[in-house]
This record gives sequence, structure tokens and C-alpha cells, in this order.
Amino acid sequence: MPRYDANQQLPMEQVFRDPVHDYIHVQHQVILDLIDSREFQRLRRIKQLGTSSFTFHGAEHSRFTHSLGVYEITRRICDKFARNYATKVPGDGGWDDSERLVVLCAALLHDIGHGPYSHTFERIFQTDHEAITVEIITSPTTEVHQILAKVALDFPGKVASVIQKTYSNPQVVQLISSQIDADRMDYLLRDAYFTGVNYGTFDLTRILRVIRPYKDGIAFQISGMHAVEDYIVSRYQMYMQVYFHPVSRSMEVILDHLLKRAKRLYEESDLQMKNKADLLVPFFDQTFTLEDYLKLDDGVLSTYFTLWRDEQDPILSDLATRFLDRKPFKSVNFSSKYDEPILHKLQVLIQEAGYDIDYYTAINNSYDLPYDFYRPNQIANRTQIELMYQDGSFIELSKVSEIVSSLTGKVRGDERFYFPKEFLKPKTPKEITLFEPIYQDFKRYIKNDAIIQPTNPLEE
Amino acid sequence: MPRYDANQQLPMEQVFRDPVHDYIHVQHQVILDLIDSREFQRLRRIKQLGTSSFTFHGAEHSRFTHSLGVYEITRRICDKFARNYATKVPGDGGWDDSERLVVLCAALLHDIGHGPYSHTFERIFQTDHEAITVEIITSPTTEVHQILAKVALDFPGKVASVIQKTYSNPQVVQLISSQIDADRMDYLLRDAYFTGVNYGTFDLTRILRVIRPYKDGIAFQISGMHAVEDYIVSRYQMYMQVYFHPVSRSMEVILDHLLKRAKRLYEESDLQMKNKADLLVPFFDQTFTLEDYLKLDDGVLSTYFTLWRDEQDPILSDLATRFLDRKPFKSVNFSSKYDEPILHKLQVLIQEAGYDIDYYTAINNSYDLPYDFYRPNQIANRTQIELMYQDGSFIELSKVSEIVSSLTGKVRGDERFYFPKEFLKPKTPKEITLFEPIYQDFKRYIKNDAIIQPTNPLEE
Amino acid sequence: MPRYDANQQLPMEQVFRDPVHDYIHVQHQVILDLIDSREFQRLRRIKQLGTSSFTFHGAEHSRFTHSLGVYEITRRICDKFARNYATKVPGDGGWDDSERLVVLCAALLHDIGHGPYSHTFERIFQTDHEAITVEIITSPTTEVHQILAKVALDFPGKVASVIQKTYSNPQVVQLISSQIDADRMDYLLRDAYFTGVNYGTFDLTRILRVIRPYKDGIAFQISGMHAVEDYIVSRYQMYMQVYFHPVSRSMEVILDHLLKRAKRLYEESDLQMKNKADLLVPFFDQTFTLEDYLKLDDGVLSTYFTLWRDEQDPILSDLATRFLDRKPFKSVNFSSKYDEPILHKLQVLIQEAGYDIDYYTAINNSYDLPYDFYRPNQIANRTQIELMYQDGSFIELSKVSEIVSSLTGKVRGDERFYFPKEFLKPKTPKEITLFEPIYQDFKRYIKNDAIIQPTNPLEE
Amino acid sequence: MPRYDANQQLPMEQVFRDPVHDYIHVQHQVILDLIDSREFQRLRRIKQLGTSSFTFHGAEHSRFTHSLGVYEITRRICDKFARNYATKVPGDGGWDDSERLVVLCAALLHDIGHGPYSHTFERIFQTDHEAITVEIITSPTTEVHQILAKVALDFPGKVASVIQKTYSNPQVVQLISSQIDADRMDYLLRDAYFTGVNYGTFDLTRILRVIRPYKDGIAFQISGMHAVEDYIVSRYQMYMQVYFHPVSRSMEVILDHLLKRAKRLYEESDLQMKNKADLLVPFFDQTFTLEDYLKLDDGVLSTYFTLWRDEQDPILSDLATRFLDRKPFKSVNFSSKYDEPILHKLQVLIQEAGYDIDYYTAINNSYDLPYDFYRPNQIANRTQIELMYQDGSFIELSKVSEIVSSLTGKVRGDERFYFPKEFLKPKTPKEITLFEPIYQDFKRYIKNDAIIQPTNPLEE
Repeated sequence: MPRYDANQQLPMEQVFRDPVHDYIHVQHQVILDLIDSREFQRLRRIKQLGTSSFTFHGAEHSRFTHSLGVYEITRRICDKFARNYATKVPGDGGWDDSERLVVLCAALLHDIGHGPYSHTFERIFQTDHEAITVEIITSPTTEVHQILAKVALDFPGKVASVIQKTYSNPQVVQLISSQIDADRMDYLLRDAYFTGVNYGTFDLTRILRVIRPYKDGIAFQISGMHAVEDYIVSRYQMYMQVYFHPVSRSMEVILDHLLKRAKRLYEESDLQMKNKADLLVPFFDQTFTLEDYLKLDDGVLSTYFTLWRDEQDPILSDLATRFLDRKPFKSVNFSSKYDEPILHKLQVLIQEAGYDIDYYTAINNSYDLPYDFYRPNQIANRTQIELMYQDGSFIELSKVSEIVSSLTGKVRGDERFYFPKEFLKPKTPKEITLFEPIYQDFKRYIKNDAIIQPTNPLEE
Repeated sequence: MPRYDANQQLPMEQVFRDPVHDYIHVQHQVILDLIDSREFQRLRRIKQLGTSSFTFHGAEHSRFTHSLGVYEITRRICDKFARNYATKVPGDGGWDDSERLVVLCAALLHDIGHGPYSHTFERIFQTDHEAITVEIITSPTTEVHQILAKVALDFPGKVASVIQKTYSNPQVVQLISSQIDADRMDYLLRDAYFTGVNYGTFDLTRILRVIRPYKDGIAFQISGMHAVEDYIVSRYQMYMQVYFHPVSRSMEVILDHLLKRAKRLYEESDLQMKNKADLLVPFFDQTFTLEDYLKLDDGVLSTYFTLWRDEQDPILSDLATRFLDRKPFKSVNFSSKYDEPILHKLQVLIQEAGYDIDYYTAINNSYDLPYDFYRPNQIANRTQIELMYQDGSFIELSKVSEIVSSLTGKVRGDERFYFPKEFLKPKTPKEITLFEPIYQDFKRYIKNDAIIQPTNPLEE
Repeated sequence: MPRYDANQQLPMEQVFRDPVHDYIHVQHQVILDLIDSREFQRLRRIKQLGTSSFTFHGAEHSRFTHSLGVYEITRRICDKFARNYATKVPGDGGWDDSERLVVLCAALLHDIGHGPYSHTFERIFQTDHEAITVEIITSPTTEVHQILAKVALDFPGKVASVIQKTYSNPQVVQLISSQIDADRMDYLLRDAYFTGVNYGTFDLTRILRVIRPYKDGIAFQISGMHAVEDYIVSRYQMYMQVYFHPVSRSMEVILDHLLKRAKRLYEESDLQMKNKADLLVPFFDQTFTLEDYLKLDDGVLSTYFTLWRDEQDPILSDLATRFLDRKPFKSVNFSSKYDEPILHKLQVLIQEAGYDIDYYTAINNSYDLPYDFYRPNQIANRTQIELMYQDGSFIELSKVSEIVSSLTGKVRGDERFYFPKEFLKPKTPKEITLFEPIYQDFKRYIKNDAIIQPTNPLEE
Repeated sequence: MPRYDANQQLPMEQVFRDPVHDYIHVQHQVILDLIDSREFQRLRRIKQLGTSSFTFHGAEHSRFTHSLGVYEITRRICDKFARNYATKVPGDGGWDDSERLVVLCAALLHDIGHGPYSHTFERIFQTDHEAITVEIITSPTTEVHQILAKVALDFPGKVASVIQKTYSNPQVVQLISSQIDADRMDYLLRDAYFTGVNYGTFDLTRILRVIRPYKDGIAFQISGMHAVEDYIVSRYQMYMQVYFHPVSRSMEVILDHLLKRAKRLYEESDLQMKNKADLLVPFFDQTFTLEDYLKLDDGVLSTYFTLWRDEQDPILSDLATRFLDRKPFKSVNFSSKYDEPILHKLQVLIQEAGYDIDYYTAINNSYDLPYDFYRPNQIANRTQIELMYQDGSFIELSKVSEIVSSLTGKVRGDERFYFPKEFLKPKTPKEITLFEPIYQDFKRYIKNDAIIQPTNPLEE
């Protein structure tokens, strides 16, 4: 079996045209082979942003393109490190370029375990894309594993350990997973490009000028403080304006309820259903293998939804239609601390109108911690962003940036209550007849996009 | 049933964020309802460029986004026309803004009849996306029709006639279909944006400044000659570099052969096969209805390919794998006029290696006529591009542009011969054993990406 | 004399190509005439960012281009307001489009009084660009005045009062002068474009979607909160990274000292000098008229510097050379509160080396208040940014944005001590001989770009 | 005196932010010193496009920024060549990286001899910017020379010979001077960026991928044919739409006539004049030295124009005003072959109105040869663009591109007749009285922006 030299370069660099980074440059045969592998090509059929394209129609890009982008940013950082900060003696905090191949492979493969609409799918079917990523890399049956194993028998394990953050060199780990890593840098730029918003466009070239290795990982020259600060603000803005958009989350709610309904019908032995979702059966049954998982993609789900649209179960058929034809639920801000009693009243109204509230209402939370410094006693610790002075001393980012400080350690986001749109905007004659009376009551509880305690009594 | 006023404006303009045009502005309720219709939402699941994303990985955008873009360009032109060239007396060659709604609807819906990978699909299954576009607009069963019919009973027919180019006002027809129409303008810009190439980026704002209505259709002020010329060059460049890319066409060849094989197996009554492609059966049988057609999308095809990958038929399984995992055929330039004898020799060699040449080789042509002036005696006539002088006289574009003249009336493109890549680059030990001897012979016929008459005899 | 109709439109809209806004659209004859006026054309010869192009070499754009940009943004806002928020009854808080011409003229002319390197020039010669702006608009001798007076005799006064913030309609005033006005929006985008940094690229199109008039001025829909927040951050970033750049300020220090020296020599009756600076004499003498002022531009100053380079006075000649050939002083952070004693020591060292510290050292402050809410008891009050809820109630920006809150009311910037570069980097043999001994002492006081209390004694 | 090692690298790469290339990377001390030299800094005060900013207001960028850009493109090409095409044995056609420093210096300095508005200035004063470039490099008095001489005593001569195209290595010469060199590549992109047009934006990254050295110079891989073709079209478009713009040429005509008038007055011993143009006297006298030349810049000229505006000579004063206040002449297309008789009639009319036709009319030609192949018998030969096939054979560009072929060897541009605008658009009462009768006659000869033979007799 032909094997790779660990650093076997391609005789001629190959490129992939990329709208975000102009070109993706491939210089190793192993990278080219990984890109050509079955498991990696499958990422073409899985959208990077799930239901976000229902809100931002340009955001139809796949996890394939993002994975190439993370690879490319990592490659550029390696080039900078090798040129400016090559290690001279072990332990001097410099960059050891023999780590290049392992970090490039980890960058390329860090999302290889993702399936369709992972967030929702995982909740319903108890899958775990991170565990599957490791499995794809380490299982002898996959093409990815076989390619990696040609470098060295222990190479797949090394790549997996980078992704699991247990690899010994903290520089390698932090390039892939930290609060400012190649993964985040690519998705912010890429998602901004494809959605068409420009909140995410921080200054990548400047970041690449000030990033540098040190003994305990990755740091940034103090002269680049504002560029790093700007990256944190961009990240925050993308979460607030794109990733947490109420309409995208609404489509996720519908997807969640649709899969939940299908699973329930399957469990209740609706045979017809089963016939029409062969590729999902192992997941309904919780007997799925890696092979089963690798057959899934966005198209498989939407194909079953197309079939379910014609099923007899009205909830399944209706939810499938809502997903395929983009009929999002409406939503309002909601506080689980204060609004529970009113929530109950609204649910009663919705139920009175004939809706099953298990499938037609939801509470959805979206929260993110834009940045945090290292807190030793917490379980999920974060590698804080370190800035390096000219004399080699360090300072943590939020200590010098009041903007970052204002976002530090504060969970941001909101909680929303979802319900069918027709409650607020009855359109068809049937809807008007059905909802008009309820609507008068319903709307008293909603003001300025939030649930309120009504001050005016219902007119009778 | 609630009806629209033909010019019912939304109380508040709605917008969709678009990476190409910044915002798509919707000002009429009927446009909003068409976008929300089932048939239009379906376009989200059909890629604009078919197999091109196998070459340019960013090109994953859908026909949905393109259709919004064509609408938006048309809307902007209507605004310009209404402000600067409003008709005063009938027949004065000005713009009659009561045409706005019909042209906006035609712009939005001009591609509504497209299915997955239309070009290939239509060849195998004798469908016709233009006829289906008209059917969707005029058939009383569709949501699109019902929405249009609310404007006026004869409104769907009018919209269809614009797309069929039989509508009475030539300005309206040419905005949607001519050599420089809103459709082409959007796809050049959009495809350039998503592929990441910049050949397609002509100067839209300048074109919109010089476009103007006249008695017989649409013209351009002479001062904008170079902007129009640049558009023609951009169009030519996109065809040469993106649309005709040999690798994208290779994936199309594989798709073609895969569907052909599936159809053949179905016709030969491979029952197992049939079970696994419910949604394609009406097409295998040639009994399909509009409803059957509207269920298809890219995901339905790839789902069946995933199932076919595990089928027993080795050709079906292999071609499905090649498509899903992106294993394109290799190709070389070929001239049907001169290279037929050598083609035969190559096919013999390929067959000797055990390949069925019906499924493993192909001749693929890609030709385009970048621009032409009006030629009265030809069947497929083109509306030539007219430039208007300050005194109101006209001149046809190619008469004043030597660049355009050099492209005028000349069909551009190439013919390529496709065959399995392993013939030129055997990789696995098995491939090497199999192909090495043939390879020595095979490669004598290929030089500089083209078929040649070998000058050196085969060494023995 | 031909007069304008207050709303006389051009028969055909005219455009100027603009790299930031694509096109500047001119629709009124009076605007075209103002652009063509002598006083406005003069702005072509005055750089927008003064000495910043010594740091960011692309930033060579003039006040002419910026003034067109402010006009264009204002025009677009007027269009939005007229379409969506036209006033129906007086006092309803809507937009009265009869204000269009006055606000457009004020936008175009708001910087007309600027001279070369205003900031520095004004300090040395006690000029005031704001007062001169008003004078240009109201003085009967200027072309600008004569053009404005054709609209109506009281029109120049109205335009001036908008710039002076005394105009009765607060919407008009705030479009030109508030914490988020057309002036700031243009210069952030324009300066970002020409410097090549991308900190300043907030989302103008989104801001233009959410801006709206109300009774007391200009507000923003709450849905656009994050876009406004992003604008504040962009503004902050541009100040920190571009406008306050230490090297640009260093060149300003040199310019300041050079003009100060020339004035001193003039006052001391150096006759030769006077002959060579005819156009500056009225400023040396403090007898200048508007006509004298309008003859000045960047080129006039640099021409005199070229002549002064050959003057006998060594300080004048040296400073002129430093400015023309871009030889900035070096600088370090300095705190007037703590570092005064050390400053004194450094100045002594510099004087010992033979430099006149009046001309070869400086303290330079750059401070900005990125945002503030209205504080009733302060002298220089700011119009706070108001966000409007769906029900018409308001909230001040910093109350809903923690990022903005973190910047609110806090003066940002720094104080730096400037001195000749050769103290830290002696280069020529002569410099090395001269500075080496001092350098050993000097550098003890400087660490991490700041003045420190040295901990190590000077080695002897 | 400290000397450079020919390849002395900076300990840390330095960068200049550039809006076109993102960053200019400086890696050698000698490059940094050249940029800091007096002669190079002077380029900041000379606009790259002369009078073009009167048409495209954004085009205020200097020759300084362009020179940095040419350097940067050359540097990137050197990197590509060194990595992919390093020479192994002398004469193998590969790239010898010991040429790097000489080509980088030549790239940086290729325009160092330019003065203000060179084209016009040279015609009036018989200067020659190319000869001056060589003089600056080789004259021992300049800072540039002294810096270059530190590399090696014969180094200045080598750099000059690259610019003079006599250097022995054709690869080095063609990188700086050929039909597709670093100079042209930078100015097309830069001028497009600053004007805001997008005709000039060819695909630089793709060109940099396909450019390669060979034995006789620089070639391009055949796969990049369309990218090279696109570059030729961009170049052609920039000439047609930007560089040859009639209004920019009109301002050049005014400048030409203004300098011609000043010289004439000087020669006629107008003493007052002389006093006011010290820095021009050596040019009036034709006694100028290099030192005199290096004192000139755009600001020096405009300063004298400001003084001349107040001179007694009415022609000098009027032309100075027209230049400073941008009052261009009007123009029409003109053919010296056919239109001479009519030209004469128009000149008579203009003279009858009291204008001196020597100063108030002009014929201006702008012609360019967009591309040509090598023509052995011609004096001014061009290095043709060679494309390289996979087998190492070559083909000349116009042989495979019909677009390029259509532009090859054909001189493009036009000839225009310039005259005062008031003849076509009298505005003031005085102008109307003066020009109305003549105007009726004058306009008979002009139609569709060109001179015509009038068909209708003058009504009397």
C-alpha cells in the first residue's frame, strides 16, 4: 500500500477558488486525498447554517466550504509562524513546523462528524457530532482514517486528540479551538459573505499579522489589540443579528417538532410511515451505525418531508408543509422568570383554538457567551485571549478593552415563545373566523415584541 | 375571496438581505405572496448552477436567490423608467408604469418551472422547464396561479405571455428576455459572487443609468457603449471560464449516465430498483403530472443516489458513488470533424479494459453564441442591442464595438471526450496493474489537453 | 439675473462617480452651481485627513470628495423620509420635504470653511473654520453666497443657521450635526475606504433603513439597534486606530513647530523669509481677509516649505525638510499626572544634545468622547441617540447596548511625548557619536511604548 | 559608511497598509531606505492621474502609492517564481532569485523621475521623465543613488539599466516593462479603485498563478489565457473610459495653454510675472538642473496659478481661474482627415467673438495601442505576450483570443476639438448677448458630439 511521507509536498501546488479567501492552497497529497474522500465530500450536502437560509437567503453554503476555509486560515498562520517564530530550542515558545500536517488535518476535519441540521437532529436522536468526528477519524472503515493512517499508524489518533483538545502542544490545540481560532475566524467571515451582512467582517489580514505562538499557546501582539477587540465585537454582532435570528429559530422549532412527531408515529407503529423513511429507521430505533449516519444529509431529510407532506397524520403533514414551504411560527420575547403565568394563559388560548401545544408552541433559548477570561473554578473553562507586550509580558484582553470587558462573562441572547403566525395575522377567511375572537384576547398580552401583563381588561 | 388591487402597495416596504444587490425591496402584496408560495419556495432546493459547485465550491446558491435578484433588477429599471422616461402620449416610446406589476411578476417567476439539474434531467426524461413554467403560472391548481388570479382573471395569462415573448409591449418582453436582460444581468453578477471569480462583474449601476425604453423595446444611450461592451465580454468570460468548465461538464456526464442507467434498469424491470425511487417512477414511466414534477429537487435525486450506491448493479452503484463522492471523468479536447478515427481507437482501448463505453465515455459539447445582431432569415432570432445617439437615431452594438464585433455571430465553446480518470492517472495497485499497459498506448494519442495523431510508434 | 425656483429640478439628473457611494446624484441646478463655485472647487486642494496620509498612504482624498459624500447621504435620507414618513399635519413629527433644499445645501457646504491642515493652522494663526464657513455662506462677495441668494434672499442665512445648529427644525439640524449624522457617516466610510482599513465599514444601508424623523429630531427604529451600535464601535475604532495614530500626530507636531518657527522669524523681521511667503504674510500679520484665506491650500503650504528648506535658519530648514521628506518624531505614552518629573529629565537630555526643546519636543493629546447621552448641566451638550419602539416610545441607545454603555461618557485617547527619532535609533556615524552616550541613559526611561520610572541605575 | 549586504533582510518584516493590495510588505533595509528618501517622498506630492481627478473626483492618489504597488506586485511574483520555478542550471529558463533586489528596486523607482502633470509639463518645457529617472538613480548627489550604491558600486547602474530595458536578463526587464508588467497591473487596479469604476478590475490573483519565467522572459500558462485576455480588455476599457475622458483632456488643454502663456509672458520680459514664479524660472530659461526639477510638485504649480489669477494679463488670469476652478472647455469629435475646412470656419467664429484661438481652442489626440504582437520591422517594438502549453511550446496571445485579436495592432482613441463652453451654453447675460448670434451658426456644425457638414443653411 502506498504510504505518504509525512511532509510529502505536491509537485505543483493545487488551488480551489474561494469567494472568501480567494484561493485555498493545497500543498500536501494527504490534504488533497482527504478532500476527495467520501466522508468529506458528504459535507457538500449539509448546509453550514441550517435554517438560517430561511432568513438570509444567500446563506446556502455548505460545511464543505467552511472546512476548506478553516484549513486555509490555519495554513496561512503556519506560514507566518514558520517564517517569523520558528522554534530554535525546544521549549522556547516558538513554532515547531513539524506540527504543520497534524494541525492542517485537524483544521480540515474538525467538522467532519456533522450531520444535517445537527443542533436539532442531535436533540431528537441523541447523536453527538463531536464523538462522530472522532469516530470517523479513528475508525478503520472510513476513507478518512485510511488516508491519515498512511502518514503514520498513530497519526489518526493524533489528529483526533487535537480536536479533543488533549494533544500535548497547546499551540496546535488553540489554533483549532480557542476563543479566537481558525474555525471561528472562517465562519464569521464566510457567514457574513454569504448572508450579505457585514457585521462579521473583522480584519483578518491584521489579525494574521499580530498572532504569534508562545510557550502556553497562541497570543497576539499588543499593537493588534484593537483588531482583536474588533473580532470580538464582530462575533457578538453575528450572534445577535444572524445566528439568533428569531425566524431561523422558528424554522428550527418546526423542524424539531416535525422530527419529534415522526419519531412518535414510528414508535406508535405507523407502518406506512416506516416504509417511507428507510434511512431514518436506524435512528428511530436507536440502532444506528456510523455507516447509517454517513448516509444522511439535508436532501435526505427534505426528501422524507416531501413524502410526509402526503401522509395521513395531519400534524406530520402540516409541519412538513410548514418546513418545506417556509411558514415560520411567530414569536415574542419571553422571560421564564416572570412570564410563566401569562405563558400558561396563551397556551390555553392556543389549545382552545384546536392546536396541540406540544407541536404548535415552543420556548426557544439562544444564548452565547461572547468572551470570557479564564475562571479556574468553572467546569467549561475558556482559554483567555492573551496580548503580549514588547518586553514579552502578557495581559488578558478584557483588562485593556472596555468594550470586550462590557461583554465578558455575560451570557447574551434571549428566550422566545413561538406560536402559529395565524394568531396574530389571520389571513384566510377560515382563519379569520377561527381566530378573530381569540385574537382580541391574545394580542392584549403582547407589546413591543414581548409578553406583557395586560393593563386593559378585555372588552366584552 | 380577498383580491388584490393591481397596484396595492404594502403599507411598509419589506426587504430581503441579498449579498449581490444588498437589499431586495418588495413593495406589493402580490410579490410577497408569490415568494411565499409553495412552488416558489421549492426553488430553494434547486441549485442555480447544477454541477458547477463541484468545480467552484462556493457556487451552492439556489434558483430562489437568482429569481429574487432578477425581480430586483427589474424593479430598479422600472423606477428609472418611471422617473425619467414616463410615457406622455401612447406610442411615444416612453414607459407606461401600469406595466410594472406584470413585468415584476414575470421577472420573479421566469425560472419557476426549473427542476433539479434541468439540463440533464430534461434530456433523459423529456421534460421542458419552459413549458412547465407556463403551466405553473396558468394551471388553476397551483398557489402561484391563485395568487396571480387575484390581481385579475387574465393576469396569469399575461404574465405567461411575457415569458413566452408574445406579450404586446416589447419593452416588457425585452426586460425579461433579450441579449441584455434582467435575467442575464443577475446571473452573471450572482454566479461571479458565489464562485468567487470576478469575470462577471460588469458595471450594473452604469448599465442602469444608460438603459432606456423606446418604441420597439429597450435601448442604451450611446454614452454607455463601453459599459454594454463590458457586459458582453463578462458574459463571454463567464461562459468560457465557469459555465463550460470541463470538470462541471464531467459531473454532468456522470449524472446523465447514472440516470440513463437507472431508467434502463427500471425498464428492464429491476423491481428492487423501483422500490427505491418512488418519486422518480412517474418519470421512468413517462406518466408524470405537474404535481409529480413539483416534488422533485436536488435532494430527492441525491437521496436516491445514496440508496443506489448500495444497489447490486455495479454500473449503477459505481456511477452513483462517482457522483456523490465527486470522482469526475477526465477529458480532452476533441474535434468531431477530425478526430473520429482516433476516438474509435481510444474507445476500443477503454472497452478492452473492461468498461462499458456507453456509461464510461461521452462526447460533450458546450457552445454559446455570445452575441448576435438580428438576422432576418434565421429561425432563432435575437433582439439585437441598440444604442441611441443624442439625436434619437440608433446604431447596433457590434457596429461600434470591435470587441463585440469579434464575438458576434460566432459560436464559442468546445467539444470534449470524457473517459475514466484512471486511464491517465492509475492510483491504486489494482488500477496500476490493469491500466499500465493500456496507458502506454493511450497517452500517445493525447497532448496539450487534446486528441492528436501520434507521431511516435508504440514502443514494444 | 436668472433666479432659481427653490425646487427647480435638473431636466436630467447628473451624476458624479464616487468610489464610496457609487454615484453622487445631483437633481437641482443650485447644487450643481455650488459644486462648480470657486470656494467649493478649492476643497479639491485640501486633504480631508491632513497628515494621516503620512501613515496611511492611500488617505490622500480631499475635503471635496467628503463634502459630496455628505450631500449624497443626506439626499438618500431625504428620499427615504419623503417616501415613508411624509408629514401630514404640521407637528406630527413627519418629514416636511420643503426642507430638502436647505438641508442638501447645508450638507454640501458644512466644511466649506476648512483650510489646509486646519487643526494646526488654526492653533498658530487663530483662524476658525466654522466661523469662516458661515462667512463664506453669508458674505455677498462669494460665489457660494450669490448662488444661494438666487433661491431666496434669506436662503443663505437659513443654510448657515443649519450649520450653526440654530435652525428651527431639529430634524434638519440633526441630519447634519448629531452623534450619528451624514457628516460622520460619510467620513467613517470614506476614510476607511481610502486608508484601506476596514474598521469604519458599518452597515450604511441598514442604518438608512431604520433612520426616521420624529417630533424632536432624528431617531432609529429599535430593530436597528445593533446597526447603530456597530456604527458607534466603528467610530470608536477609527479614532483609536486611524485618527489618533501616533505617527500622523507626529507629523502634525512637526508642522506646528515649523509654522511656529516661521511666524517667530517673521516677527523678528527676517526679511528674506517674508519675501518667500507672500500668501502667508496676512496671517503672520494677523490682518487676513476672507479673500486671503481662500487663496490657501495644502500646495501653498508645501510650496513655502520647499522654499524654506533652503533658508538659512537651521531650525526652519530642518523642520521643513522633516515635513516634506516625512521624518516623524518618535513618541512614547506619557501621563501628565505622573510623568512630569521624568519628562523634565528627558528634556534636559535632549537639550544637552543641542536641540531646542521648543521645536524638537512636544506633548500631544488626542482625546475623543465616542458617545454620550444628554447631560443637562454640561456646556457642550450632545443630542443623544434615540431608539423608537413599535408603540412609539423611545429609549436612549446606551440603555440597551452594553457595548455603547461601556464607551459612554468616557473620554478615550492618549497623551504622548514627542522627540527626535535619532535619540532611540541613531543611524548616521555623526548621530551615533552624538547620541550613543545619551541614548544609554535615555532608554532607561522608556519601556513598552511608555515613560517609566527606571528601576536599574545607569551603568557607568 | 554602513553598507548593505545585498540581501540583508529586516529583522522583522515591515508593512504599509494599502487599499489595493491590503499590505505592502517590505523585507529589505534598502527598500525601506529608498522609500524614506527625499526623492521618493516627493512622489506624494504628484498625483498619479494628473487632471483625471477633475472628472473622477476620487482619483486623487499620488505616484507614491502607485510606486509602492508596483513594488508589491513584483515582490509577489518573485515569491512565486522562487518557490515554483527556481533555476537549477544556468540557462534552464528558471528564475534566479539573486535578481530579486535589482528588480524590486527598479519596480519601486521606475517612476521616480515624474514631475507634476508630466505629460503637459514635458511638452512645454522639454523635460523627459525617463531620462530624469535614470539621472536620479545614477547621479551621486541624490539620496536614492547613495542608498543604492551601498548595495554595490555598480548597483545603481544595474537598476537604471532595468528601467532602460538594457539589462541582460529579459525576465527582469519584462517584469517592469512589457505589455503585461507589474507597472500596468498596479495602475489598472489602483486607478479603478480610486476612480470608483470597475473596468480595471481584472483577476490579479489568477494572473499571479499563471505567470512564469522562461528562457526569453515572462510567459503565461495556457490555462490562464482567459485571465490574460481579461487583463487586455480591462486595459482597453480603462483607456477608453478613464484615461481618454474628454473632460480630463480638456483640463490638460487648459493647463497646456496656461503654461504656454506664462512662458510667453516671461520671454516677453513681464517682470512682475517672473517675481511670482521663482521655482519655474529655470524652466522658462531652460537652465534647469536636477535640483530645480526635484523642487517641483503639483502644489508648486497650483500655488503659482493662484498668484497668476491676480495678474494683469487677462489670458493668463483667465486660464489660471479656469484651471483652479475647474471650468473645462467643451469638445467635439474631430477628424483631421475630413474636418479641417469646418474647423477653420469654427475658429473664425471663435476669433470673431474676441477669443485668441491660440489659447482658447485646441486639437487634442488620445491614442493607444491596446496590444500588439512583435513586428520585426517596426521601430518601437513590443514584447508580445506568450502563452505556454503543457509540453513547453508557445503561442502568441492574439492567435488564440479573438477578442485580443480584434484589438491587436489597431490604434484606438480619438481626436477632439476644444473650445470655450460658453459657445454652446451661454449662461450669464453678457455671454448670452455675446454668443447668441454666433451660437446659431456654430451649432449647425455639431451633431451627436461630432463635427458635421451642416445640411441646413443658416436662417437669416
